[in-house]
Amino acid sequence: MTKPNVRIEHDLLGEREIPSDAYWGIHTLRALENYPITGKTIGTYPDLVFALAHIKKASALANLELGLLSKDKTKFISEACDLILAGKYHSEFVVDVIQGGAGTSTNMNANEVITNIALELAGHPKGDYHFLHPLNDVNMSQSTNDVYPSSIKLAAVFSIRGLLEALESLQMSFRKKSEEFKDILKIGRTQLQDAVPMTLGQEFSTYEVMLGEDISRLKEATSLIGEINLGATAIGTGINTDIRYSKIVTDILAKQTGFDLNAAPNLIEATQDTGAFVQLSGVLKRIATKLSKVCNDLRLLSSGPQGGFNEINLPAKAAGSSIMPGKVNPIIPEVVNQIAYEVIGNDITITMAAEAGQLQLNAFEPIIAHSLFKSIEHLTAGCKTLETNCVSGITANRELLEARVKTSAGLATALNPYIGYENATLVAKRALAENRSVESIVLELGLLEEKKLKEILRPEILTSPHSL
Amino acid sequence: MTKPNVRIEHDLLGEREIPSDAYWGIHTLRALENYPITGKTIGTYPDLVFALAHIKKASALANLELGLLSKDKTKFISEACDLILAGKYHSEFVVDVIQGGAGTSTNMNANEVITNIALELAGHPKGDYHFLHPLNDVNMSQSTNDVYPSSIKLAAVFSIRGLLEALESLQMSFRKKSEEFKDILKIGRTQLQDAVPMTLGQEFSTYEVMLGEDISRLKEATSLIGEINLGATAIGTGINTDIRYSKIVTDILAKQTGFDLNAAPNLIEATQDTGAFVQLSGVLKRIATKLSKVCNDLRLLSSGPQGGFNEINLPAKAAGSSIMPGKVNPIIPEVVNQIAYEVIGNDITITMAAEAGQLQLNAFEPIIAHSLFKSIEHLTAGCKTLETNCVSGITANRELLEARVKTSAGLATALNPYIGYENATLVAKRALAENRSVESIVLELGLLEEKKLKEILRPEILTSPHSL
Amino acid sequence: MTKPNVRIEHDLLGEREIPSDAYWGIHTLRALENYPITGKTIGTYPDLVFALAHIKKASALANLELGLLSKDKTKFISEACDLILAGKYHSEFVVDVIQGGAGTSTNMNANEVITNIALELAGHPKGDYHFLHPLNDVNMSQSTNDVYPSSIKLAAVFSIRGLLEALESLQMSFRKKSEEFKDILKIGRTQLQDAVPMTLGQEFSTYEVMLGEDISRLKEATSLIGEINLGATAIGTGINTDIRYSKIVTDILAKQTGFDLNAAPNLIEATQDTGAFVQLSGVLKRIATKLSKVCNDLRLLSSGPQGGFNEINLPAKAAGSSIMPGKVNPIIPEVVNQIAYEVIGNDITITMAAEAGQLQLNAFEPIIAHSLFKSIEHLTAGCKTLETNCVSGITANRELLEARVKTSAGLATALNPYIGYENATLVAKRALAENRSVESIVLELGLLEEKKLKEILRPEILTSPHSL
Amino acid sequence: MTKPNVRIEHDLLGEREIPSDAYWGIHTLRALENYPITGKTIGTYPDLVFALAHIKKASALANLELGLLSKDKTKFISEACDLILAGKYHSEFVVDVIQGGAGTSTNMNANEVITNIALELAGHPKGDYHFLHPLNDVNMSQSTNDVYPSSIKLAAVFSIRGLLEALESLQMSFRKKSEEFKDILKIGRTQLQDAVPMTLGQEFSTYEVMLGEDISRLKEATSLIGEINLGATAIGTGINTDIRYSKIVTDILAKQTGFDLNAAPNLIEATQDTGAFVQLSGVLKRIATKLSKVCNDLRLLSSGPQGGFNEINLPAKAAGSSIMPGKVNPIIPEVVNQIAYEVIGNDITITMAAEAGQLQLNAFEPIIAHSLFKSIEHLTAGCKTLETNCVSGITANRELLEARVKTSAGLATALNPYIGYENATLVAKRALAENRSVESIVLELGLLEEKKLKEILRPEILTSPHSL
Repeated sequence: MTKPNVRIEHDLLGEREIPSDAYWGIHTLRALENYPITGKTIGTYPDLVFALAHIKKASALANLELGLLSKDKTKFISEACDLILAGKYHSEFVVDVIQGGAGTSTNMNANEVITNIALELAGHPKGDYHFLHPLNDVNMSQSTNDVYPSSIKLAAVFSIRGLLEALESLQMSFRKKSEEFKDILKIGRTQLQDAVPMTLGQEFSTYEVMLGEDISRLKEATSLIGEINLGATAIGTGINTDIRYSKIVTDILAKQTGFDLNAAPNLIEATQDTGAFVQLSGVLKRIATKLSKVCNDLRLLSSGPQGGFNEINLPAKAAGSSIMPGKVNPIIPEVVNQIAYEVIGNDITITMAAEAGQLQLNAFEPIIAHSLFKSIEHLTAGCKTLETNCVSGITANRELLEARVKTSAGLATALNPYIGYENATLVAKRALAENRSVESIVLELGLLEEKKLKEILRPEILTSPHSL
Repeated sequence: MTKPNVRIEHDLLGEREIPSDAYWGIHTLRALENYPITGKTIGTYPDLVFALAHIKKASALANLELGLLSKDKTKFISEACDLILAGKYHSEFVVDVIQGGAGTSTNMNANEVITNIALELAGHPKGDYHFLHPLNDVNMSQSTNDVYPSSIKLAAVFSIRGLLEALESLQMSFRKKSEEFKDILKIGRTQLQDAVPMTLGQEFSTYEVMLGEDISRLKEATSLIGEINLGATAIGTGINTDIRYSKIVTDILAKQTGFDLNAAPNLIEATQDTGAFVQLSGVLKRIATKLSKVCNDLRLLSSGPQGGFNEINLPAKAAGSSIMPGKVNPIIPEVVNQIAYEVIGNDITITMAAEAGQLQLNAFEPIIAHSLFKSIEHLTAGCKTLETNCVSGITANRELLEARVKTSAGLATALNPYIGYENATLVAKRALAENRSVESIVLELGLLEEKKLKEILRPEILTSPHSL
Repeated sequence: MTKPNVRIEHDLLGEREIPSDAYWGIHTLRALENYPITGKTIGTYPDLVFALAHIKKASALANLELGLLSKDKTKFISEACDLILAGKYHSEFVVDVIQGGAGTSTNMNANEVITNIALELAGHPKGDYHFLHPLNDVNMSQSTNDVYPSSIKLAAVFSIRGLLEALESLQMSFRKKSEEFKDILKIGRTQLQDAVPMTLGQEFSTYEVMLGEDISRLKEATSLIGEINLGATAIGTGINTDIRYSKIVTDILAKQTGFDLNAAPNLIEATQDTGAFVQLSGVLKRIATKLSKVCNDLRLLSSGPQGGFNEINLPAKAAGSSIMPGKVNPIIPEVVNQIAYEVIGNDITITMAAEAGQLQLNAFEPIIAHSLFKSIEHLTAGCKTLETNCVSGITANRELLEARVKTSAGLATALNPYIGYENATLVAKRALAENRSVESIVLELGLLEEKKLKEILRPEILTSPHSL
Repeated sequence: MTKPNVRIEHDLLGEREIPSDAYWGIHTLRALENYPITGKTIGTYPDLVFALAHIKKASALANLELGLLSKDKTKFISEACDLILAGKYHSEFVVDVIQGGAGTSTNMNANEVITNIALELAGHPKGDYHFLHPLNDVNMSQSTNDVYPSSIKLAAVFSIRGLLEALESLQMSFRKKSEEFKDILKIGRTQLQDAVPMTLGQEFSTYEVMLGEDISRLKEATSLIGEINLGATAIGTGINTDIRYSKIVTDILAKQTGFDLNAAPNLIEATQDTGAFVQLSGVLKRIATKLSKVCNDLRLLSSGPQGGFNEINLPAKAAGSSIMPGKVNPIIPEVVNQIAYEVIGNDITITMAAEAGQLQLNAFEPIIAHSLFKSIEHLTAGCKTLETNCVSGITANRELLEARVKTSAGLATALNPYIGYENATLVAKRALAENRSVESIVLELGLLEEKKLKEILRPEILTSPHSL
């Protein structure tokens, strides 16, 4: 006799009790017992849940079109997926984000939840799989090995939209600052040593350009993950699928999501290949590397205020210290630096998981997915807080910057074409040693006439190429 | 006029409304706004919350002993910490695990929660900091820069106890299997090619020994993180602390927690140095590497069943496939492999964060802490599921294994000392080519007499050194 | 008085003796003293030396065109570069591959060697820099900060041609094998467990396809590094260059080398940005990851011969063991695996170096260059030995493979659409437990008629999608 | 008929011509053909060659003691090893550092070279293996699988001596500077922002302490690699060795080398376990991380001179720029940073290789060895150049440093215990905003009396804890 609050389900290992109100079933239960790893469920990646629902719905519609699934079953599956897409059942996706079994538990979790929602819609009790079966019906023409990697790719495409927006917004913020600062002359630096003049606007415009290039690379990498392997089933040979299924389901899914998706030309290769994830993670790592460099620069340029570079001021966003009153720290760039380190670590995790794939399948896609989603989400959050809480409020210490240019020994560089590298070296050394301006030493040594010298040292001449 | 459900707090940036029922205050609020990164709060690392409560309590007691804090204040702070240690306020530790500011927000969050619990105990409203102040009182003699790294270390010590238990339990499980399998003769392999005989018990005992060594290394690394820097305050010079404080607080904390803690001999160095974290993460990475190797072996040895090694059977823990009926996969080793990849990625994150520390402080300790705690927690979970759901239920295919030994060309190795490497090579090549036993070829060629040959090929002779 | 075998040169630090026969000068000498790190000289990267010579020649010609350099000087510089391009002076490029100074020593080494060859051609003694000066003339319109990254990019483009050839040749070798094995039926595997049938030809064709995708990605990444920053000089503001220089020199260089090169649109950004190197290294890492996976597969498939998969035979290329006679190991895949691990390590080195760039320059390009060149060279060598010494000689154990398919429990999968997942599970379990064929159990249970069953289990039906 | 300058040797693959003057033989020739990867030979790691010679000699002596090898053969083998130890035959160790086959080729190369030297000593022609055989005699009681990992460990022990010396010398150099600078007051920094006072001596002493801890960790890790597996032979079961061999050979080797070596308690485990290498590499990575942090600090502290921190001056070691006259860059710290990035990359390579070991052997020890040796050698070189060319010549800008302390807003911290955190915050904010000293504002606000204030702000009070 069954207990009041449970139903009985079975699998190849035997029977188990499932809580009556759970939409997930016995396969999900096994996963809960086998993988109590992080406490974080796949339902906390909404884009993954959306992707699964989209794929299951598209598959049901394709099966209907092929005459493999009845109109009724298709309708209930489809409506169940729509409810998931409406965001109502994320809490039923309970499998741990780190799981064995190559994603089978994720696929099973989706199959079971969809089946039981559909059963409910059809007026059947949960678990009444005679009417609608999680594997025979909801998983029809599918295998974890095509559904799961396709869902990761689709979820990544969803998530990357947000990252692109955040990157573009940050890029715009740097552009605004570069315009605001375009007339502020300062000394550029190489190897942390004073070099030659530039404008602060030029400095900030490099960040805008960098982000622009990253955005281009990210778009390229995203287009590569639009290639999915639905129809591959177990190992890519398409066993148990109709020959027309792969194209039909991909087209339906592309239409449903509005994304440019296409079926991989070689499904066996596509089923085992995680190269597109490695590539995408490589681009995320590139973005992280660049963002971290930018944040390092912002922290350097705002260092001080008394004993540092003190060129710019980051907006104060919190008391900096529990012991040092009045201290304001570059806390927003710091959080972005840390996200970058995490993304770079994630890339190693993804690389190792990709390398470890064997023969017809990569069993380690769950950790690839988890690492990839974290990288995308945290980079997005990092760009947003960097834009809102930091870059948009940066101000410049114009007077200090311009005063430093006037006395800089770096001006000697501009004299190379006129007095030669060796004379210029002598001038620069004396300027530093005697704490005098380059100009006064050149004049004292009679190396150039004053008029010519003034011409050479004009700001617009110093900060861009011109006719020699 | 204040709104009904809020109280007003202020910091150097101005005033803000705080929800009346929140124990945290304005500094925490700033953090919530500045770091909306992962959605995972520091309160989800209970060992970190315990560590903070222990430190704050020990510090209050030390300040009392030094005559710096009143009995009353000490009592209320101490009781507040005890309530946190009882597990009642974890949900008030709301700052994101990835945060800028070198942990300042974590320290502030702790200061504020403790203060407001204490105020409540003392019959004061939350936010009434005239009576008890988060910084002047609860943070007295402290700085984030000593509290925060000390709390990470203490939390790590707490967590590692669980990891050690899990490792020891797994070790014991391998020991049992090694005894169970001690008489099963099999062919060992090098470079995935059949080599020379051994017992399956010997094979499993190596895993026991490996884990034993890892346990030793982990204990060593843990002892290094027992060196804390309380009393260092801002940069290690101990500004604003009494000269006796460092020793007193460390002793109290050691007694409170029962751990072998001691004050770093050079507090300036200790405040900026994250070497102990890098070392500990390196050991966790070592453990991960070894566990992953063991899991790779288990997956190989159980591969097949028809087209693989098929030497052992892992317990079936779930249906292996949504499309292939009856398939059982090595899902538990697979989840451990993935944890290993994550730990190795975390090590890179930690290394980069450690390298990026500048001058008197490492501002990137939050990501170090987060990565370290994840590595410890997930390794612990991985060892547990590996022990419970896999190793303890492994069985061996004794007959198949022993049959393979009899026909193995690898037996030719044992003949080297008697017939020389070049003759033995000829024998091995013919045995494989003609699908015959080494024994029959040796006898046919008259290389050894049958009696001598039987003696040389006895199992106990083959699987251990003996008198030549 | 000067000693017989030396000449005297000077720099801002003072005078030094240089061996008379050395074409390099005092700046190179400083580097030899400052960087005695690896013992490997930049001259051992011939593509880097070629790239430097090409750039210096193109720059001289551009300066001539701009009226900045005399015809005579241009002629001698140009001829000196041609001699280097002819391969005669590699041994004069003596600076260590790991060097500080952001590549300044490499640029100085090139300037000095070219100057002294040119002086010799002009009939002047080495070191007679009044006639032709390494900095004023050979380095005219240049800075290390544009010459050095441009030379790395150009050298990488040169080297990648070799890698592409090796990849294409390996791809062709896999294609041949895939055709040779196209009729050999075998059991595919997921998670190291027997799955469903496929052909060995299908298995090998996946490697061909994978390599094809890697080749495409590599070509894309290569096109990104064709964007160079000549004309940027010190920090990208183009100080000391004519406004026309950047375009002229890039065009000359493109024509000289036959490569599709172009000037970066924002030279300040281009001078500090190492994103293209990170991207390229990411693609090399992707290639390494895939090659390693392929080699893991080859080692698995050839494992045994008696106690392993034993599906294919790798050609014997050496005695496998100093103690086990007749043993043949998968040594060629093993060396490729190791190259892959190295490339993945190099990628971390490159990433850290890229992240560490500060403000207007990345001072760590030398280690980026060294790591990148190693990755390219070793991957090229690995592909070549894999093709020649392994893949081209692989043979298959056809009979064994086909016999395994007949008795495989994996055939039950094909029955899902006809008897349902749960019945198929029962069949598969019994087939394994009773060591019987799937066919006989289906018939015994009366689940399908024999004719239908034979139809379902035809090889061409099993290994590709068909009409359901 | 044999050609004049070659001799004929054979192995299981057939006959080949070997150059008459080569001491290496056919197994080495196979390796040359199979592994044309880096062009760098194992002979370029002299410590590895020494280690191999020591092991082969010790083994011969052990075999003699066990009555397995004749006196004559032992004598000639022993003398041949002595000649190698005298450094005469490194050029005969020609196998590529990156090789497949788990080190077999390295062992074979050693066996062949020793045999042919011994043959020469005995008056026999090279290749006359009837008299003395590379495998039966020189490799007696051995296998690559015990000789090779033991030789890596021994070579590492040799090399680490040099690294320890270099670290200790660098540590001493920092100690000297810390004494030289012990009275120079400066502002410490956290998160790149001005914090509270310290002395420059304190700052430099942290580097000394850090290095001291690294030295301790390195010594610990070295002791772990003194555990070797001689006597294990093929898979650790000791097949073909006398039961006494393992202890005897280890004792002889320990005496020969003067190192504290011991036989692993479980030889099967020891043969497959690369944990000690992972651990050692982890410690090298730790050292790299810390050295890089120190170099980052040196570059920061010497940044400027006009627009940076400008606290210390690194000795000028080269002209800094090919275009900016008089520029002097922190080139020595920069080269050490790059070595650090390389070591961190090498650690990933080693970790992946260690993780990839399968069953009774790790086939990827060659890349572990290569990466480890590079890390040790380059760190050693980096420490040396850092000590000699940089740290020993650092000078301080005392006046500037001390002037900054006087006007620092950071002094407000010292007032917390007397005026409270919130008052101190107000003081600090006004000091910065009005560009006035903390002292003047405190007095103006009447927060403290002048005498008390002077007392609180005394240097010795500010830079160390004292009685409150």
